[in-house]
Amino acid sequence: MTDHPTTPDAGLPEGVDDAVRAELTSLRESIDNIDAAVVHMLAERFKATQRVGRLKAEHKLPPADPARERTQIKRLRELAAGAHLDPVFAEKFLNFIIAEVIRHHEAIANDAVAGGNDAA
Amino acid sequence: MTDHPTTPDAGLPEGVDDAVRAELTSLRESIDNIDAAVVHMLAERFKATQRVGRLKAEHKLPPADPARERTQIKRLRELAAGAHLDPVFAEKFLNFIIAEVIRHHEAIANDAVAGGNDAA
Repeated sequence: MTDHPTTPDAGLPEGVDDAVRAELTSLRESIDNIDAAVVHMLAERFKATQRVGRLKAEHKLPPADPARERTQIKRLRELAAGAHLDPVFAEKFLNFIIAEVIRHHEAIANDAVAGGNDAA
Repeated sequence: MTDHPTTPDAGLPEGVDDAVRAELTSLRESIDNIDAAVVHMLAERFKATQRVGRLKAEHKLPPADPARERTQIKRLRELAAGAHLDPVFAEKFLNFIIAEVIRHHEAIANDAVAGGNDAA
């Protein structure tokens, strides 16, 4: 809830040179800032995929969509290459996210079925 | 390389209602925008961790840092909760990224050792 300081030099052994410690701390602060941004982007992404999941469940569309996934993977690999990010990692990352999304979609579909069976 | 259109309605079955198709397409465009942002954030994150990896290798610091990782996980879980993202997923996500970072750090450390052994 709170965005408290993370003591980014936690865990550095004693005896590390002050200049090295300062540079590591600065890099870790940047990493922490990026992680906060990514977490918030992913929160927004899951809001969108939850809406997709509800639409798919309402209209009896399958949770997974291999053609869409192939297009996404191709595009992300290209974007990654342009950003000097390993395209293999970008593809693994997207597969990791998609696995979570499909888990959500299946849960939504199961809830819809359970709701449909519940006459109360 | 190119940020070409992704035909976000690829894979939707024939016979899907036009309004549903339009809403799915709009949601998929948002997802594609978010993915592009995240890929670029991750590219920047790996630039930072590569610098951390080189510093650690130069100063013989261990690639993994369990105290730092515990602090990161605790903070990301809190940020995720505030953003209505599943904290369990946020932790899995960070572990996924850290595994890749450690792989990079080990490669950097191995390169440094290989370089040190090469008298040429």
